[in-house]
Amino acid sequence: MRVIVTGGAGFLGRLLIQGLQEEGIEDIVAIDVVTAEIPGCQVLQSDLAHDQILAGLLEESPCTIFHLASVVSAGAEADWEHAVDQNIGGMLQLLEACRQSNHFHKVVFASTLAVFGGDTAGGEVGDFVKQTPSGTYGTTKAIGELLINDATRKGHIDGRSARLPTVIVRPGAPNAAASGFASGMFREPLAGIPSVVPVSEETVMVVGSAQNTATGIRMLAEIEGSLLGHDRAVGIPGLSATVAEMLEVLEVVGGPEARALVSLEYDAATDQLVQSWPAQLDDRRGRELGLPADPNLESMVRAYVEMINR
Amino acid sequence: MRVIVTGGAGFLGRLLIQGLQEEGIEDIVAIDVVTAEIPGCQVLQSDLAHDQILAGLLEESPCTIFHLASVVSAGAEADWEHAVDQNIGGMLQLLEACRQSNHFHKVVFASTLAVFGGDTAGGEVGDFVKQTPSGTYGTTKAIGELLINDATRKGHIDGRSARLPTVIVRPGAPNAAASGFASGMFREPLAGIPSVVPVSEETVMVVGSAQNTATGIRMLAEIEGSLLGHDRAVGIPGLSATVAEMLEVLEVVGGPEARALVSLEYDAATDQLVQSWPAQLDDRRGRELGLPADPNLESMVRAYVEMINR
Repeated sequence: MRVIVTGGAGFLGRLLIQGLQEEGIEDIVAIDVVTAEIPGCQVLQSDLAHDQILAGLLEESPCTIFHLASVVSAGAEADWEHAVDQNIGGMLQLLEACRQSNHFHKVVFASTLAVFGGDTAGGEVGDFVKQTPSGTYGTTKAIGELLINDATRKGHIDGRSARLPTVIVRPGAPNAAASGFASGMFREPLAGIPSVVPVSEETVMVVGSAQNTATGIRMLAEIEGSLLGHDRAVGIPGLSATVAEMLEVLEVVGGPEARALVSLEYDAATDQLVQSWPAQLDDRRGRELGLPADPNLESMVRAYVEMINR
Repeated sequence: MRVIVTGGAGFLGRLLIQGLQEEGIEDIVAIDVVTAEIPGCQVLQSDLAHDQILAGLLEESPCTIFHLASVVSAGAEADWEHAVDQNIGGMLQLLEACRQSNHFHKVVFASTLAVFGGDTAGGEVGDFVKQTPSGTYGTTKAIGELLINDATRKGHIDGRSARLPTVIVRPGAPNAAASGFASGMFREPLAGIPSVVPVSEETVMVVGSAQNTATGIRMLAEIEGSLLGHDRAVGIPGLSATVAEMLEVLEVVGGPEARALVSLEYDAATDQLVQSWPAQLDDRRGRELGLPADPNLESMVRAYVEMINR
């Protein structure tokens, strides 16, 4: 079975590919807008929304496609046209390639809890709650979920959407995600570098470790379609935490010297986006389907430390 | 104030334009894929998804755009690519034209109760229920609603989505709507022509008159944006009726000779789409916002008879 990972050069793509390789899967193709080296994996540089690279790959055998490529939250908010072009256009191209293919493919789409917002901002949400996103990023992801459901219903693909929590601790350089500080506030201080938190200490976020999230996405692909039913969007289990609790865990794991490297500098635009996301996740459906959950906040940070020390 | 009506040559577009003219609005431009004559109204033939005709119109003054142009239900189900191209592509072109314009425009989007389905098929729905459409038509409309909300939030437009019930009695020739029989079963027999109903007599539909629906769309444009809040999709009030009840009303209005012209010939594909739509509408939000409702089924049919006899 060939596996294709779009956005494969990103941190979550890399963790996912690593997990797939540990499972013994050998034929993995990563597609990304940037060039990259990934051990044991073919990497193709491509702009999915405009290239036709997928069609050829899909002709060779049935594939599982993990569709992670995306313009992220603050980036999408800053450039509506680019977000629409990449996130909606890329999804439509992908679905069209699947529909035209002579093989039947599985598609696992990385969505987000940012599909919520508006009237549910800061509240509890679950798989059966209406999506009223407060950002262009969440809007394009909610649209992707609808397209995945429709293409599955029509028999064009076997689709699933994994709604990701805010992932901590994301390795590598900061990106355009509004939630980026939630990784930076651990990653930078643990490396002896100062870090800025642009929201208040009371801010509540639904978070999950990069490791658990990548595992959840991988496991969602394995669940029998009939158990998922008509609506293929599933929340990956996550935990609620305040920024204050996250700072405490930083101190436990990295000591007071790490904690001292974090300063709070309020930024209204970032805070507004983050506040619009859910504060509580009803993740029963995902848990009942067997998707894993992080035991606690500290274990998430320790999983990161273990990874970078490996 | 200039008013633009896309899909303006359709029956609902024509009723809407008539209503606007009765209100005293003179500068009305209808855009449609077909050529047409509409009294007192400029008609432009254009494919909104691919032409750039809107941009010029929007530069001249602030406009209210009623966006009715759409590939309809059975048509969209039969041709996924065309539905995506026209319904999603057309909406994105329209929003981009508004965003690029130096004026601020109001957009009223004609959505549908077919945004519901899946887990809510045949049940009660309302403005706060999650959309899980069972058809490509409903999927593209749910996507349109999300885009309207996002563009409104970002200040690109002042947007509203009117979720239409199944409209009876639609004048003119049959179209590719799966709900078309619900008009044909009145229109044809009242003109002495036989008509076929492809679903069972127990089938429940949420229906509204063409007259009330056109008025509802027009009134939704007038409601102050702050009363609509973040989520701009509003159900136009409608009534639940079984096909059997509709046949009874046909007999009351048109006599037994009209009733005798209707035969039931089950068609699985049509029935499946119709069954996936809601059977009951919680339309309290629309009513509280002041949108009108038909008094009963008979009044809907009498409104049609009055219109064709005018």
